Amino acid sequence: MRFPEPTFTDSGVFVALEGGEGAGKSTQSQLLASWLTDRGYGVLLTREPGGTPVGTALRGIVLDPATGALSSRTEALLYAADKAEHVDTIVLPALADGQVVVTDRYIDSTLAYQGAGRALVPEELEAVALWATGNLRPHLTVLLDVDPAIGHTRFEGQDRIEAEPLEFHRRVRQSFLDLALRDPEHYVVLDGRAPIDDIQQSIRKRLEPWLTQASS
Amino acid sequence: MRFPEPTFTDSGVFVALEGGEGAGKSTQSQLLASWLTDRGYGVLLTREPGGTPVGTALRGIVLDPATGALSSRTEALLYAADKAEHVDTIVLPALADGQVVVTDRYIDSTLAYQGAGRALVPEELEAVALWATGNLRPHLTVLLDVDPAIGHTRFEGQDRIEAEPLEFHRRVRQSFLDLALRDPEHYVVLDGRAPIDDIQQSIRKRLEPWLTQASS
Repeated sequence: MRFPEPTFTDSGVFVALEGGEGAGKSTQSQLLASWLTDRGYGVLLTREPGGTPVGTALRGIVLDPATGALSSRTEALLYAADKAEHVDTIVLPALADGQVVVTDRYIDSTLAYQGAGRALVPEELEAVALWATGNLRPHLTVLLDVDPAIGHTRFEGQDRIEAEPLEFHRRVRQSFLDLALRDPEHYVVLDGRAPIDDIQQSIRKRLEPWLTQASS
Repeated sequence: MRFPEPTFTDSGVFVALEGGEGAGKSTQSQLLASWLTDRGYGVLLTREPGGTPVGTALRGIVLDPATGALSSRTEALLYAADKAEHVDTIVLPALADGQVVVTDRYIDSTLAYQGAGRALVPEELEAVALWATGNLRPHLTVLLDVDPAIGHTRFEGQDRIEAEPLEFHRRVRQSFLDLALRDPEHYVVLDGRAPIDDIQQSIRKRLEPWLTQASS
C-alpha cells in the first residue's frame, strides 16, 4: 500500500484547531475566522466530523448514544470517510480559491481518539487516515492543551466520546502532544486555560507569516 | 501498514454470493439458506451493504440518488465501515457459533465496483478493505456471472450504482472474474443465465464438502 507524501498547498492557508473536549476550539476558531474576515481574507470555517452533508449524517451515527458499541474499525472508517469527503469537497476547493480554511478538528483528532483510546494498531489507523485525506496537512495546527480533568467540567450534556472515562481522555491528550512534537514547524501548543483573548493573540501571531499565501 | 493474512475460520462455513446487478444473488442466497435450514443447519442470511443497523444507515447514504456525487474515497471508506461492522458484529459471532453464514455480496463487490469503476488505486482500495475485515475470507464465493447488457434488463428502479453506464458494469464483471481466477479453491463461477434450479444445484454440490465444519 503506497501512501502519498505530506502535502501542504501553496495556495490558500489551512489551519486546524485541535485538543480535547472543552479546550475552547470552537470559540477560538470563530474568533479567528471573524478576525480574518475583518482583515479582508476569504475565510472558510468548518469542522470534523460533520463539515459536509454526508459528514453530518456520519457524525449523527458516531456520536448518537443510541448507536451503542461500534466496532473500533467501523468507527475509524466512518471518521476516515467523513475526512475524505471533507477534504475533497470542502477544504481543497477553498484552498485552491486562495481562502483561509479554519477547521475545528482534523486528522490529529482521529489519531488521538481512535489511536489512543481504542484497540487498534496506531500505524494502521494513521495509514487509513492518510489515505482518506491524500495526506493533506495543515500549514498550522493549533493544539489547545487542557488537563482533561478540567476540560471535562465545561459541559454537561455528554455524547458517546465525551462519556469515556478520564483515563481515556488522558491518553488522548498525550497523543495530541506527541503529534505536535513530531513537527514543530507546523504546530503551536497553547495552554487552553489561558484567557481567551491571550490565546487568540498567540494564534494570530503564529498564523501571520502564512497569510501571504491567502487572497485578500 | 501491516495487513493480516487471509483467514478462513475452522468453525462454521462462510459463503458469499457475488456478481453484477440482476445476476440473481438474492434469489440464490434465499434458496440456499432455505435448503440449509431444512437440512438442520444453523443459518444466517445476510448482505452487504446493510447487514447491521449502522450498515443500513450507510447503505441509505451511499445508494440514495439525493446524496449526489460522493468522493471516490468517501464511498470506498463507507463501504469499508459497513464491512467492518458486518464482520465484527454479525459474521464472526455466527461462524464461532458453528452456523453457515450466507452473504449477498462481500469484499469482491467492494473491489469490483470501487476498483474497476472509480479513480482509485486498486491495491490501496484492497488494503483498506482487507484492514476493515481483518482479511476474513469466505470458504466459498459463488460468482453469478451475467453479461451486464442482460443483467440490466431485469429491473426498472435504479439506484446510484445501477445508473452507471454499461461500460462501468463491464469493467465490474471483468474484475469479478479476475478475482475468481486468483483462487479457484475458494471460488465457483456459474452462468447466471442458467435455470434457477440448475444454478442452485451447482451451488449446493460445491458447498457440500465444507458443511462438515457446520453444526447441524
